Amino acid sequence: MGVRAPATITEVVLFDPDMSCDPLPAALPRSERGFTSNVLSGTPCRHPAVGVIAGTLRNHRKSAALTNMLTRIDHIGIACFDLDKTVEFYRATYGFEVFHSEVNEEQGVREAMLKINDTSDGGASYLQLLEPTRPDSTVAKWLDKNGEGVHHIAFGTADVDGEAADIKEKGVRVLYEEPRRGSMGSRITFLHPKDCHGVLTELVTSAPVESPEH
Amino acid sequence: MGVRAPATITEVVLFDPDMSCDPLPAALPRSERGFTSNVLSGTPCRHPAVGVIAGTLRNHRKSAALTNMLTRIDHIGIACFDLDKTVEFYRATYGFEVFHSEVNEEQGVREAMLKINDTSDGGASYLQLLEPTRPDSTVAKWLDKNGEGVHHIAFGTADVDGEAADIKEKGVRVLYEEPRRGSMGSRITFLHPKDCHGVLTELVTSAPVESPEH
Repeated sequence: MGVRAPATITEVVLFDPDMSCDPLPAALPRSERGFTSNVLSGTPCRHPAVGVIAGTLRNHRKSAALTNMLTRIDHIGIACFDLDKTVEFYRATYGFEVFHSEVNEEQGVREAMLKINDTSDGGASYLQLLEPTRPDSTVAKWLDKNGEGVHHIAFGTADVDGEAADIKEKGVRVLYEEPRRGSMGSRITFLHPKDCHGVLTELVTSAPVESPEH
Repeated sequence: MGVRAPATITEVVLFDPDMSCDPLPAALPRSERGFTSNVLSGTPCRHPAVGVIAGTLRNHRKSAALTNMLTRIDHIGIACFDLDKTVEFYRATYGFEVFHSEVNEEQGVREAMLKINDTSDGGASYLQLLEPTRPDSTVAKWLDKNGEGVHHIAFGTADVDGEAADIKEKGVRVLYEEPRRGSMGSRITFLHPKDCHGVLTELVTSAPVESPEH
C-alpha cells in the first residue's frame, strides 16, 4: 500500500533494515501493473507503457501452466556464528562441499552455498550458510535472539517480480519495494513471516547463467 | 554409546519423547557393524552374520560414489497450530497442493506433504506441514516454546541406516536407536540439533514405491 513497514519487522528481515512495501497500489488489477520480461536479457522489467500487454502475456502464461509458478525449493538459509566452522561441519559430517561463497557488506553477511541436488525446473537446491559480518546486521540480531538455526526458506521462480506482486495482492507483506541482489547474482525478495505462519520466506530468480563465482 | 539421551533433548525431537541413542558401540569399526541392503526388497537390514561382507560392499559403494550419500533436500518440516488453515495458506498464496496427508497418532501429528519439485536423484522435495494431535506431543511442546515456523530439515538418502551409523561415528548424536516410520512409508531418523549448529536434521529413505496415499 506504499506505507512504511513497522519498525518491529526489522527483527526478522535478512538484509534490509530499511525495508518498505511495494508502492504500487494493491487495488490496481494485475493486468494494469506493467510486469513483463526483457526476453533478450532475461531481466524482468517494469514500465507503465507496457502495462496492459504485459499483463495479458503474463495471464496467458499463467493459464498455460495451470500450476503454481514457484518451481523449486531453492535453498534453506541457516544462520551461524562461525561460517568456516559450520562449512566444515557440513563437509565432514555429510560430505557437502561449497559451491559458491561471497561477502555482501551491504547486507552484512558472509555466506556459503552448498549445492545438494539439481531440480526438475532446471535449477538446484542449496543450503545457504550465513554469518554476520557486523554486530548491527539483521542476521547478527537474529542470532542474538534465536541462536543458530534455520533463518528462512526460499522458493525459486522464473519471475520474482510477478510472483511478488501476485502474492502482495493476496495480502502478504512483501519486504522489498523491488527485488534486490541475492547470491550468485540472483534477484530476491522476502515475505513477512507473520503473514506466512512464522516462516520468513524468500522468492528467488536465479541469474541467467548459473556458474560458480569463487 | 547405548546410554539414554538426557531429558532435555525431548524439547527438540519431533516424534519420540522416549528416544535413545544407537546401542552399537561407536568404537566398533564401520566394517564390523553389519549394514547392508536387501537388493530384492530395497529395504536396508542389519544382521551380525553379514557384518564384514556388508561393510566391504558398503565401503566399495562409498569409494565408487566419491561424494556424499545424502542426495537431496527431501523436505522442510514446518510446525503449525492449524493444519487446514496452513494448507489453505500455501494453496491460496503459492498454488501448492497437498500430495499426501496422514495422521500418526503414535507421533502425535497430523501432516500434509506439499510436493514442490522433483530432484536429480529420482526423489522429490516437499514441504511437510505438521500439526500436533495432542497437547503432550513433542510438536505441541515445540510450538508452545517457539510458535509456528521451521521445525526441521530433512535430507534424502538411499541408506538411512548406513548414513546414520556413519554420522554417529563422527560424534553427532542420532536420536533413534533404529530408523522409524516416517511420511509415506519412509524410514527416518533424527540428528541432535545441538550437534548440528542448531538445526534439527532428519535423514530419510523413501519407501520403494512412492505413490500418493490419500
